[in-house]
Amino acid sequence: MKYYIGIDIGGTSTTIGLVSQEGKISDRSVILIEGFASGPIEPFLDAIVDAIQALAKRKGVTIEGIGIGAPNGNFYNGTMEYAPNMPWKEVHEVAAYIEKRLSVKAVLTNDANAAAIGEKQFGVAKDMNDFILITLGTGLGSGIVAGGKVIYGHDGFAGELGHSIVVPGGRDCTCGRKGCLEAYVSIRGLLETYHAFEVGTVNTPQEIAMKAEAGEQAAIETFMKTGAWLGLKLADAAAYTSPEAIIFFGGIAQASDLFFPSLKETLEANVHNLYQNKIRIMRSGLPLNDAAVLGSAALVM
Amino acid sequence: MKYYIGIDIGGTSTTIGLVSQEGKISDRSVILIEGFASGPIEPFLDAIVDAIQALAKRKGVTIEGIGIGAPNGNFYNGTMEYAPNMPWKEVHEVAAYIEKRLSVKAVLTNDANAAAIGEKQFGVAKDMNDFILITLGTGLGSGIVAGGKVIYGHDGFAGELGHSIVVPGGRDCTCGRKGCLEAYVSIRGLLETYHAFEVGTVNTPQEIAMKAEAGEQAAIETFMKTGAWLGLKLADAAAYTSPEAIIFFGGIAQASDLFFPSLKETLEANVHNLYQNKIRIMRSGLPLNDAAVLGSAALVM
Repeated sequence: MKYYIGIDIGGTSTTIGLVSQEGKISDRSVILIEGFASGPIEPFLDAIVDAIQALAKRKGVTIEGIGIGAPNGNFYNGTMEYAPNMPWKEVHEVAAYIEKRLSVKAVLTNDANAAAIGEKQFGVAKDMNDFILITLGTGLGSGIVAGGKVIYGHDGFAGELGHSIVVPGGRDCTCGRKGCLEAYVSIRGLLETYHAFEVGTVNTPQEIAMKAEAGEQAAIETFMKTGAWLGLKLADAAAYTSPEAIIFFGGIAQASDLFFPSLKETLEANVHNLYQNKIRIMRSGLPLNDAAVLGSAALVM
Repeated sequence: MKYYIGIDIGGTSTTIGLVSQEGKISDRSVILIEGFASGPIEPFLDAIVDAIQALAKRKGVTIEGIGIGAPNGNFYNGTMEYAPNMPWKEVHEVAAYIEKRLSVKAVLTNDANAAAIGEKQFGVAKDMNDFILITLGTGLGSGIVAGGKVIYGHDGFAGELGHSIVVPGGRDCTCGRKGCLEAYVSIRGLLETYHAFEVGTVNTPQEIAMKAEAGEQAAIETFMKTGAWLGLKLADAAAYTSPEAIIFFGGIAQASDLFFPSLKETLEANVHNLYQNKIRIMRSGLPLNDAAVLGSAALVM
């Protein structure tokens, strides 16, 4: 059996998983970001290296390769670039640093691309060559697979559906523009949509989901509007890459019963007839806490 | 020297070109559609076969392969499907029919994909792996190249940017929906935009271009608005495939001086900062009458 490392770098914590070639996480280690937030990035990368060595030693295995999923990760350069939710801005050569310290091949991509690769290798997209994976969390990330390959674009930054514009001149987005899909469909977007009904204050999408399930109209409509915004833009997405399926991943995706109906209705109402009734809307087949690690590991397999 | 056939099937005429491996059209034959319009498709396909045989005989060469660009062409099946501007609706197995009659490999794709392949093989995209080619004519066609390959999608119909929605609830499109980019940016779209100014009647985009060059404000604004609609949607396109360049082809593209400025301005104002000032807006490097034939031939090389 061959073993790989899958790393999921996130704004709060970073998970390092030891992954077998058949896609099982046999051990893992978690590093909290806050301990490193006030300094340069190297001590954080050294902590990742230490964790990898400890995992390999504990299980007595050799590491065949290291895959890294990082916010604003650039596949071509192995860099994390200007990640808005990380303490280290600018451009950081994450893959090269880890590869050099361990003399093991390290590959990096953005977290949504890693999730897409994981879904293809181990999840519901096993038999698909054309699909879009959407991660719904703090932001809206996406990984586009066409002809069996992730689309990286000429600069390594393709697949940012969260920053396509759904409402021209609409809500402010963290990217500095207005009306991006992410400003409507994300944790922040859901909260803003709900609070506009002025029926109360909530702190998480889960609270809105619970209210919707209890029959509160504002909460129900919040998810319906969320689905409709998604459906409108995913109709465009069909015209770009004609995917077999659009797969949702992340905490908000757990509430799919609440927004898939309006998503599908708006998608079919707005999609060109070439693509009508062809696109499957699905939830990820991977466990929420494992997908990014599995996907990152799959990147290097 | 090896020789190939490139076929450009269009609503008015079909051009069959004898193309050398270095991308020169050494002879060609044109078939008018109107002579076949009232009957089944087979006599038309037989006429294509006859023309291919005549070209090969005239030049004394062997044909290595046949590439076909067709409206609503499906790469996977070699079919032309429900093409709105052709006399033959439904699904027609064009490639298989020609391949069988001549015992030479025949491959088919849609006309915009063929133009994109031609641009990569022989035109301005020679050194590019990620670009979008847009054909501006009766409709707005597009071929998306990512990682060096045309994106076909799971059903063979990817790359229909003309049917992404630029004005929700806007102008009627020939596809039956409202607000598609093609309803604004195409021959018909330009005429409608110009006529809304109520300063006179024109029959072609060329007439509007001549009026714009003569300083007529309505004509100038027609092209400025056209560029702005394009820029808005191409900002989205960047977020999907992060192209190095967007290349324009077709009659309207000849008037690029009139709409590229507003296109670039709107694109840069609406694109995510990851992609800002990175995307080149260009005109095709291939002769207008040859690109589709060259691209179709390149498809099979």
